[in-house]
Amino acid sequence: MSIINRELRLKHRPEGMVRREDFDLVRAPLSELNDGEVLVRVLYISMDPTNRVWMRDIPQYMPPVAIGEVMRAGGIGRVVQSRSSQFAEGDLVQGFVGWQDYFVIHESAANAYLRLPADPGIPLPRLLGACGTSGVTAYYGLTDIAPVEAGETLVVSAAAGSVGSIAGQIGKIMGARVIGIAGGADKCGYLVDELGFDAAVDYKAPEWKKALKDATPNGVHVNFENVGGDIMKAVLSRMVLHGRVALCGLISGYAGDTKPSDDFSVIVVKRLAVRGFLVFDYKKTKQAVHTLRGWIREGKLKTEETVVDGLEDAPLVLNRLFDGSHKGKLVLRVDPHA
Amino acid sequence: MSIINRELRLKHRPEGMVRREDFDLVRAPLSELNDGEVLVRVLYISMDPTNRVWMRDIPQYMPPVAIGEVMRAGGIGRVVQSRSSQFAEGDLVQGFVGWQDYFVIHESAANAYLRLPADPGIPLPRLLGACGTSGVTAYYGLTDIAPVEAGETLVVSAAAGSVGSIAGQIGKIMGARVIGIAGGADKCGYLVDELGFDAAVDYKAPEWKKALKDATPNGVHVNFENVGGDIMKAVLSRMVLHGRVALCGLISGYAGDTKPSDDFSVIVVKRLAVRGFLVFDYKKTKQAVHTLRGWIREGKLKTEETVVDGLEDAPLVLNRLFDGSHKGKLVLRVDPHA
Repeated sequence: MSIINRELRLKHRPEGMVRREDFDLVRAPLSELNDGEVLVRVLYISMDPTNRVWMRDIPQYMPPVAIGEVMRAGGIGRVVQSRSSQFAEGDLVQGFVGWQDYFVIHESAANAYLRLPADPGIPLPRLLGACGTSGVTAYYGLTDIAPVEAGETLVVSAAAGSVGSIAGQIGKIMGARVIGIAGGADKCGYLVDELGFDAAVDYKAPEWKKALKDATPNGVHVNFENVGGDIMKAVLSRMVLHGRVALCGLISGYAGDTKPSDDFSVIVVKRLAVRGFLVFDYKKTKQAVHTLRGWIREGKLKTEETVVDGLEDAPLVLNRLFDGSHKGKLVLRVDPHA
Repeated sequence: MSIINRELRLKHRPEGMVRREDFDLVRAPLSELNDGEVLVRVLYISMDPTNRVWMRDIPQYMPPVAIGEVMRAGGIGRVVQSRSSQFAEGDLVQGFVGWQDYFVIHESAANAYLRLPADPGIPLPRLLGACGTSGVTAYYGLTDIAPVEAGETLVVSAAAGSVGSIAGQIGKIMGARVIGIAGGADKCGYLVDELGFDAAVDYKAPEWKKALKDATPNGVHVNFENVGGDIMKAVLSRMVLHGRVALCGLISGYAGDTKPSDDFSVIVVKRLAVRGFLVFDYKKTKQAVHTLRGWIREGKLKTEETVVDGLEDAPLVLNRLFDGSHKGKLVLRVDPHA
């Protein structure tokens, strides 16, 4: 039996929003496995803002995806054939899966993948979100990079998103006053009414800078920053002296259609500590995931996943991270039976 | 006897380089002292890049100097008349003196001034430089804000200047490999031949970015940043992952004639820790000064002061900080007998 694999290979480096035509949809029969190899069926693909950066030929924390290469992406898959003693059929693995139906792992690279129990006890999309890299990112941002203390004011941008929604709730668990910045009244209502944020600022509203000021009468002690650009600038202008910034992402510049115009001088004027970080630098995340799962069980942490079907739509689904039309973790389901 | 005081009062907010016409030279007789007041003769005025920022009506760490106000500046003076039991004639004081011949301290504000011994044992200009705010700034930048360790590579910009020249030498004392960035072959020779830097990069030379790259084959662990703009951008592009930046100043933007175009994304990509700081936040600097004086005595720390005469030339002398035509600490001597 020959299996046909669908692969989305980068054709052009996109400008602005991603188009279908920026990728070649290649249908290729899979070769027979060699000794030591396992075949993995992709179940879910994580849609992350950083994917958009990987499409660009600019300096970044990993090599850009090359033209002609299958688009790199994190996700979860299930082993469907194994010629390695290290993997059994049915095993779940998490790691780089790519925008495709199937991929092959050689057992020499097994360490690059996290092994999940056959029944992880929580929905798989959540393992990519609140109990995966998104949750762990939020966790380290507020416990290691820019620890927030009880009574302080925390501002989170992209607050209805995958990382931001967890970061804000962790801020509440820590006892901080938490302000979220998000686009639209619906998301802002969600932050306050469902997630328990103290206030939300709708950056699409005309008077949003004033609203941010009104919501932070004592200034901002910690900024968990996901957006950059004008939103970051407005938050930094509200920082207290010696405030701390966990610089998680700068999504406003990822698509490359807006030129960032940052200004380091606020860092001197306010004597800020600004720290960039990347979740992949944390090698032992078990304790963080354990803590996050505990908070979810106790009802202190609410999670939300938006699951969309259809591998071939991946380029368009990714754009939803940038047009703001989703809440929580955005996940693409590749296997309709997953 | 009536003393005439010369005061330089801000008339216009300068654009670009400062002009004489941006200040009014006012000659005003001094009033008799009231009880609790002391009259101080200004001996030396410290010329600092931050003075230029104080002339601008932009958000900063202190209120800008108001139009009509005597230009604010640090310096050293000697008490020439006292109607306070807290000060005796002949006492030396250090603090804000202003661009003028004389000023009055009320004893209720005595705490704002540092009292110096009648004979401090070192030249007074050095008390404004290596043994004053410049030296202490360099000291805390590399011991508290972005500690540098033996074997690491430190890059210092404006390295022939007051703070930079001390910072680079402290880096050497700490055992780091130290690269200085300065303008012109003369200054670069001074850094390497006289101050013991491992290498110097002349940013006025056409291939300076390549020279910086060649001088930092293992990347940059710590950047002591005084300049900002293109120079900072080039240094940040050489940082190792998890590098540290002591953001001391951004002099390239102070005169307001160049628009800074910074980009925070390098902070995320390299997972940098960028910390702004201000020496005035350190309240107890005695130990730092003691350490600096010890290094000077032991010959480990070389100091340089450029002393220029003439209060009325203060606006033009200040420009020398921005055109790069001095080495070490730039000080204006107001009292020709000092």
